[in-house]
Amino acid sequence: MKILIVHAHPEPRSLNGSLRDRMVATLHAAGHEVVVSDLYAQGWKATLDGADFPTEPPGARLDLIDASHRAFADGAQTPDVAEEQRRLLWADAVLLQFPLWWFSMPAILKGWVERVYAHGFAYGVGEHSDRRWGDRYGEGVFAGKRAMLVVTTGGWAEHYLERGINGPIDDLLFPIQHGILFYPGFSVLEPFVVYRAERTDAARFEAITADLDRRLAGLFTEAPIAYRRQNGGDYEIPSMKLKEGLERAGQQGFRLHRA
Amino acid sequence: MKILIVHAHPEPRSLNGSLRDRMVATLHAAGHEVVVSDLYAQGWKATLDGADFPTEPPGARLDLIDASHRAFADGAQTPDVAEEQRRLLWADAVLLQFPLWWFSMPAILKGWVERVYAHGFAYGVGEHSDRRWGDRYGEGVFAGKRAMLVVTTGGWAEHYLERGINGPIDDLLFPIQHGILFYPGFSVLEPFVVYRAERTDAARFEAITADLDRRLAGLFTEAPIAYRRQNGGDYEIPSMKLKEGLERAGQQGFRLHRA
Repeated sequence: MKILIVHAHPEPRSLNGSLRDRMVATLHAAGHEVVVSDLYAQGWKATLDGADFPTEPPGARLDLIDASHRAFADGAQTPDVAEEQRRLLWADAVLLQFPLWWFSMPAILKGWVERVYAHGFAYGVGEHSDRRWGDRYGEGVFAGKRAMLVVTTGGWAEHYLERGINGPIDDLLFPIQHGILFYPGFSVLEPFVVYRAERTDAARFEAITADLDRRLAGLFTEAPIAYRRQNGGDYEIPSMKLKEGLERAGQQGFRLHRA
Repeated sequence: MKILIVHAHPEPRSLNGSLRDRMVATLHAAGHEVVVSDLYAQGWKATLDGADFPTEPPGARLDLIDASHRAFADGAQTPDVAEEQRRLLWADAVLLQFPLWWFSMPAILKGWVERVYAHGFAYGVGEHSDRRWGDRYGEGVFAGKRAMLVVTTGGWAEHYLERGINGPIDDLLFPIQHGILFYPGFSVLEPFVVYRAERTDAARFEAITADLDRRLAGLFTEAPIAYRRQNGGDYEIPSMKLKEGLERAGQQGFRLHRA
């Protein structure tokens, strides 16, 4: 199969760099094709701005959604954005690999999402009616593809548990898992998270990578997270509220959206 | 009082630009001093990388925490980072103003956090013992200062309610409110959120800004969110788990951390 790794760490000799190399080796050994978008090495432009829309009239008020729509529709995007879109369309599975900085992805990766997820490509697609509200949350351009996060944290695992002070890791990652991956149609796997990334000796690295190898072996067979499909009947349209009575007793907030 | 607005939108003629101008005018009229960090206009470098640590030995393996610690301690930071730190220390209140892109802040603002929040400044400070676990979550460099988000979304308000498909806005903003603002000591106010930012005519703009003016009038008197203080007795140390029995019945996840 074809796998895209989007890697966001500035130091190749870091734990993240070593995990990236290991993933490439493991996936190659299993017969997969692998492409790596190494955002730091590529000098990826992190900031979404007017320079992303070179055919917009100079001096015009920049409406980002309209400009993105026109640039995508007219083939007027910058080459770096178009290339990342081609890689996404090529891939059967996408791995986003990054250190958790301030409880989210690094700016360079956030800027990859903002620039590559064009209007008409990753959002703003599909019929809007009383039965459908666009192709999103389970439908969309990436339907049929799989995605998984590979994340390191400096903090302890306990601090990310249900009662931990940082908040539960699944809730912290929900805006990415549900809002960035499930939204344009990916089937999303449970994240692979390495805690206390600063304290990794050789023995621990072997244990971590053995776990990671097992997750990669299941990349195309593991059951994805059962997020509810927007147009599957669970939500009122157009308010997009979860219908009453579908949740398990006591479920709140983000957890309502897992069936 | 002294107020810093950190503004993250590329188009001055956008709704965000108009809200920024209105905030400045309202705060000036109330007798406050205002400084704006206009990240796009300043050409803010969004990406945290080796160029942020010019005195590190060339070719050395980049450990971001160590390098950040040394640069801050030795006064070897880049001038743009040092200037933003000075502005934060000067301010009595900080407003972060941005459009919600893919359920979080724009990359340029995330990169402001990553670069300005140095080790030894905004994290990695204070005693670690069996009674304290660093100066964070309610203590830290910004203790005594207030912070508020001013956020616009393209999506409908209903989609961000408790049962809305995007997830509740308070949970989506928790990694920022709790993890970026409360963590280094800010007293955090409820966010000011404008939904459906694409559909703003003059009458609606007047209604929005009247609401915003009221929030700004209460900037120094409104009760902050009652997030639990890490070292206030509610958490086990060092696991940082919320002690059993402190929550209200049915509270889960992020909500456990509001007293």
